[in-house]
Amino acid sequence: MAANTFGECIRLTTFGESHGEAMGGILDGLPAGVAIDVNHIQIELDRRRPGQSRLTTPRKESDRIEILSGLFEGRSTGTPIGFIIRNENAKEKDYDHLKDTFRPSHADYTYTAKFGVRDHRGGGRASARETVSRVAGGALVKSWLQIEGIEVSAYVERVGEIAMAAEPTFYQRGQVDAHDVRCPDAETAEAMTAAIDEARRAGDTLGGAVVVVVRGVPAGWGEPVFDKLHAVLAHGFFSLPAVKGVEFGSGFEGTQLTGSAHNDAFASTPEGAIRTTSNHSGGIQGGISNGMEIVARIGFKPVATIRSEQDSVDAQGQAVKVVGKGRHDPCVLPRAVPLVEAMTWLVLGDAAARAKMNRV
Amino acid sequence: MAANTFGECIRLTTFGESHGEAMGGILDGLPAGVAIDVNHIQIELDRRRPGQSRLTTPRKESDRIEILSGLFEGRSTGTPIGFIIRNENAKEKDYDHLKDTFRPSHADYTYTAKFGVRDHRGGGRASARETVSRVAGGALVKSWLQIEGIEVSAYVERVGEIAMAAEPTFYQRGQVDAHDVRCPDAETAEAMTAAIDEARRAGDTLGGAVVVVVRGVPAGWGEPVFDKLHAVLAHGFFSLPAVKGVEFGSGFEGTQLTGSAHNDAFASTPEGAIRTTSNHSGGIQGGISNGMEIVARIGFKPVATIRSEQDSVDAQGQAVKVVGKGRHDPCVLPRAVPLVEAMTWLVLGDAAARAKMNRV
Amino acid sequence: MAANTFGECIRLTTFGESHGEAMGGILDGLPAGVAIDVNHIQIELDRRRPGQSRLTTPRKESDRIEILSGLFEGRSTGTPIGFIIRNENAKEKDYDHLKDTFRPSHADYTYTAKFGVRDHRGGGRASARETVSRVAGGALVKSWLQIEGIEVSAYVERVGEIAMAAEPTFYQRGQVDAHDVRCPDAETAEAMTAAIDEARRAGDTLGGAVVVVVRGVPAGWGEPVFDKLHAVLAHGFFSLPAVKGVEFGSGFEGTQLTGSAHNDAFASTPEGAIRTTSNHSGGIQGGISNGMEIVARIGFKPVATIRSEQDSVDAQGQAVKVVGKGRHDPCVLPRAVPLVEAMTWLVLGDAAARAKMNRV
Amino acid sequence: MAANTFGECIRLTTFGESHGEAMGGILDGLPAGVAIDVNHIQIELDRRRPGQSRLTTPRKESDRIEILSGLFEGRSTGTPIGFIIRNENAKEKDYDHLKDTFRPSHADYTYTAKFGVRDHRGGGRASARETVSRVAGGALVKSWLQIEGIEVSAYVERVGEIAMAAEPTFYQRGQVDAHDVRCPDAETAEAMTAAIDEARRAGDTLGGAVVVVVRGVPAGWGEPVFDKLHAVLAHGFFSLPAVKGVEFGSGFEGTQLTGSAHNDAFASTPEGAIRTTSNHSGGIQGGISNGMEIVARIGFKPVATIRSEQDSVDAQGQAVKVVGKGRHDPCVLPRAVPLVEAMTWLVLGDAAARAKMNRV
Repeated sequence: MAANTFGECIRLTTFGESHGEAMGGILDGLPAGVAIDVNHIQIELDRRRPGQSRLTTPRKESDRIEILSGLFEGRSTGTPIGFIIRNENAKEKDYDHLKDTFRPSHADYTYTAKFGVRDHRGGGRASARETVSRVAGGALVKSWLQIEGIEVSAYVERVGEIAMAAEPTFYQRGQVDAHDVRCPDAETAEAMTAAIDEARRAGDTLGGAVVVVVRGVPAGWGEPVFDKLHAVLAHGFFSLPAVKGVEFGSGFEGTQLTGSAHNDAFASTPEGAIRTTSNHSGGIQGGISNGMEIVARIGFKPVATIRSEQDSVDAQGQAVKVVGKGRHDPCVLPRAVPLVEAMTWLVLGDAAARAKMNRV
Repeated sequence: MAANTFGECIRLTTFGESHGEAMGGILDGLPAGVAIDVNHIQIELDRRRPGQSRLTTPRKESDRIEILSGLFEGRSTGTPIGFIIRNENAKEKDYDHLKDTFRPSHADYTYTAKFGVRDHRGGGRASARETVSRVAGGALVKSWLQIEGIEVSAYVERVGEIAMAAEPTFYQRGQVDAHDVRCPDAETAEAMTAAIDEARRAGDTLGGAVVVVVRGVPAGWGEPVFDKLHAVLAHGFFSLPAVKGVEFGSGFEGTQLTGSAHNDAFASTPEGAIRTTSNHSGGIQGGISNGMEIVARIGFKPVATIRSEQDSVDAQGQAVKVVGKGRHDPCVLPRAVPLVEAMTWLVLGDAAARAKMNRV
Repeated sequence: MAANTFGECIRLTTFGESHGEAMGGILDGLPAGVAIDVNHIQIELDRRRPGQSRLTTPRKESDRIEILSGLFEGRSTGTPIGFIIRNENAKEKDYDHLKDTFRPSHADYTYTAKFGVRDHRGGGRASARETVSRVAGGALVKSWLQIEGIEVSAYVERVGEIAMAAEPTFYQRGQVDAHDVRCPDAETAEAMTAAIDEARRAGDTLGGAVVVVVRGVPAGWGEPVFDKLHAVLAHGFFSLPAVKGVEFGSGFEGTQLTGSAHNDAFASTPEGAIRTTSNHSGGIQGGISNGMEIVARIGFKPVATIRSEQDSVDAQGQAVKVVGKGRHDPCVLPRAVPLVEAMTWLVLGDAAARAKMNRV
Repeated sequence: MAANTFGECIRLTTFGESHGEAMGGILDGLPAGVAIDVNHIQIELDRRRPGQSRLTTPRKESDRIEILSGLFEGRSTGTPIGFIIRNENAKEKDYDHLKDTFRPSHADYTYTAKFGVRDHRGGGRASARETVSRVAGGALVKSWLQIEGIEVSAYVERVGEIAMAAEPTFYQRGQVDAHDVRCPDAETAEAMTAAIDEARRAGDTLGGAVVVVVRGVPAGWGEPVFDKLHAVLAHGFFSLPAVKGVEFGSGFEGTQLTGSAHNDAFASTPEGAIRTTSNHSGGIQGGISNGMEIVARIGFKPVATIRSEQDSVDAQGQAVKVVGKGRHDPCVLPRAVPLVEAMTWLVLGDAAARAKMNRV
């Protein structure tokens, strides 16, 4: 059933398989009058693009976006924005051996169980390549919301067991991108890079965690009861490939505290604004933004494609050995940063639109 | 904007404030022909009901459900099932002092920021009392899916820092409910109970974690790419009050492993079925069920209402002191168990309906 | 599948069968801060109530609405408004003979074909009694939009072959309700009444047409391309029982004209507003309101329940004779007037909400 | 707000402006395993293509569809089908004079009122060119449903005042397409053609009516109460450009009959199937298909672009004269036939998918 659309009032619908003709999507519902600079959209896509550094897959894709509708004289018109990104470096042959084999911890088996048919080339629709359309959609929403003073910044907090010591905070993109691994702490970044290099040499892979921090969201976004702001964010994050856990504010660790330690006291600023003196709530209370920084952590499992031989079965249920070929990332975390930001923008755009209907 | 509906093909819409006339909802889309025993629905509601044990709020509510439509001669007719649960023990006076005060880590401030107006009595719409309608909806879906051999079981794995040592597994309801705290391990349950008693005596509160395990879901449920089965489950779990974190299968811990350690190898059973030899995936791969047990962990923050004095502000931004009155749970975990199960049933029912459209 | 919800941003979900416990619904998404007078809601319900005059069914129902949530101190709070209307005059026995019989031109056969099971009492879910919940929902939306200067007025233009000569125009409710038949033209109303009386005496029924006119909608409501304002209105009108045709502005007749005769020229008013000098467009161009009066005509077929003997079959396909019992209207038109208005309010409310997102 | 998606379980989302880069869309939700022949899709597009005969606009477009995803080895995979159709014959200059002028009975004014900005070239998003994506979507659904024995056939019943005398019935495509005007009656077709020729010579335009007849839909499709099958069909038809009226079965005319004359008696066929002996219901009762032919009539207003001088205003409200340039159809009816069929297929596909959830 149709499930390739995300959002209620501002909706992104995507299409495309890893080795098909093109990836693409339609962003529908962006208000009219937003200045859109295609170069800015491209910058976001470039940040997700494969082959940026030795830490990522060597697949070569220029990932040039072609916007086909919805803009006029540099502004959004309120009509749907259709776009495509051609697949250039599709190497079908690399995947012939997988046609009838279910790779461990990939979606090969479940797609086959569900649909009976499957485009096996490079993971088909289940490939992380699908996220290129999300980055485009997120960048379009960003073009709108950044005017309103909203900032979204994600970074790699942990790779495998190597983690930053600092508490989640807002880093500028320059700080995050200063290191290929997209960890803003130089020393940790270096250790992460070494760990990824080692994993790649061993034909193995690593997971980790991304933190995203949002500034500038006013109090009052998010819809009770089912579409709480963090519930929709979590829906978006878990829809990204390889995500195993999501937490907000104090997260799982905070659930070990007592109420008296965990509660965020309210206070007024000298300017008369209301704020909390701590932020265990992660900027969201009762599912609605409270004006503080929104903070989330997203855990990504290690990439499933590894070079060592693994036990599996084929479509007939016969035991087979699988050895990873094709091009893949030894660690998805650096490229997960723009994905997390894109999903955040998409959720925020929708929340902003919906919040316009709060009151008479 | 409208956001009190959950689900696509099988949808629950709820209404009701803590101290209004009644709670209630409409479950729409249940297939025709499901045998519905109202006593079974009531049993599920009783399990969520306040005042069950000294571990929970002393608010007295009989929580009798009245089903108003959609059933005929004991079966669903395919038409919407409307139901109400009257509020009986509403004590408005208990909340007069809160009319203009924002309780720390409650939704008072954010509702006011969003809507300008707020039913302050007992938390209004933000009260966990709203979940009674979800339990009713979940029980209706359960009436259908349990015939198909699906079982859902949740339990309290951790209260504050006191946790079970055992890995997540399926426990029968009898094992879970053997202890008021709904932890199936007797020794841990006892320690948890002592901790909750102590917190209550101290006027404080505790959080913790619930684990839910699902058996019997066939391979092929869940919709790529945005409505991955675990993404929708997470949406549902995070829409419950007080949830701060959700993880599936190996969760955050698994993101520290290498790919070779984390991957789940496939094997055939002697009967020819395909299964994985480990279950780090938590029963879901690429967003689609793979036939293994679905395993999730949900973290709940400590209850925000505490007896100690806290700093806050009123609607005018003036500093005030807040002291918890009203009736509340010292620890929400035991009563969270039926909530987690209800959301799981709702998501599974929708996934089951949607999976009917997989193939020609 | 779930289909008992109408609207995107402001959504009405209804439940209830003709002879079940209660009818009811949830209006979700109304902005916070709307003053709601329950007496005004009741007035709208009374206008739809059976037994108002000899022209309508003698079924006696007080149709008292009970609002269960969503209001606080006389105003909407932005949370869902749940309501019920008890069924009081349910006479199950009247329908025993129909348990296994498919009444001609009723929904008995199709519900059975679809669901396998059917509440046969008084038409069950297919009964026009379901519309009581729509009138409640429409009245709630009206409470909001009438403040913004919007007026909706429907009237009976034709009963059987007896029709008003005047072109569609806006009539005040007093003019419409001056006659039981709800035709604002006295002479035509009298002829209609005589025709209905005659049909009732003959055990037969009549159909006809309702016209609805809307004033005060600003230019810019309605969403291209699929949710054009008139497309959504038509969806709503056709969802009412017995509707066979819908047309806007010049309607079918206008399709016989040439473009030069049909086009609506634009002109500026002395005050500088833009208007059209004719209104063949019926207030909507390209699916978006243009600020002129919105005009629609809705055709209702004759009531299917008649007293004469008719040929039909039973659930086993055996030929049977059907004779109408139970209580029914000889002509649905007078009571269709509030239904058409209610659907119009529901569509306009949603359109108003959605229009808030037109521009940055 | 997002409104460029049609359907619930099988959804078409479209994008594109008349003189933008490309038109296109995404069909999401088609079951896996449907054989798709791109040549068959192209045949449907060719039938809508401009420049087919002297009766239609001379705009030259090859309208070649490029399918970018969702197919694998000639079959649908259950993933979204993205497609584009390039705009080739865009002549921006033809529309320069319209940049600030509101053409009578076009959407120029209302788009401007709504969005503040407007792509004025050839009507932009409001152009009937948008329907090319609907024809593609409809053809994809047809690939599925025709295997199940469903047939959809539309034809021109009336142009201006020249109408077929025959009652609506099912015509084979060969009969319909035997005449450029797509009226299956030779004599009427000739008269229609002459009338269109005359209108074109006079710089004027004509409207008319299309009838669509569907065979093979089983009893049980359509969802009570808001998504009645004919309500959704009407929504789809009214979302097409220029539609002013829609009626089903006996339509407006039938509302003049008495119940005894209008009711459709049930009878059993010798084979034991249940059918009605007349079809005033137009194949739908209570919003659900009854297994008989589905019959609808759709009225299209005359094309708004005419060569004579018309009064209008510009964006500043100043009086101006408008004279139609650009390329346009003198009568949209012949090309409306494939549009009506496409919307019918889209609605039926969605209804078929939803009907899979009727019963346990």
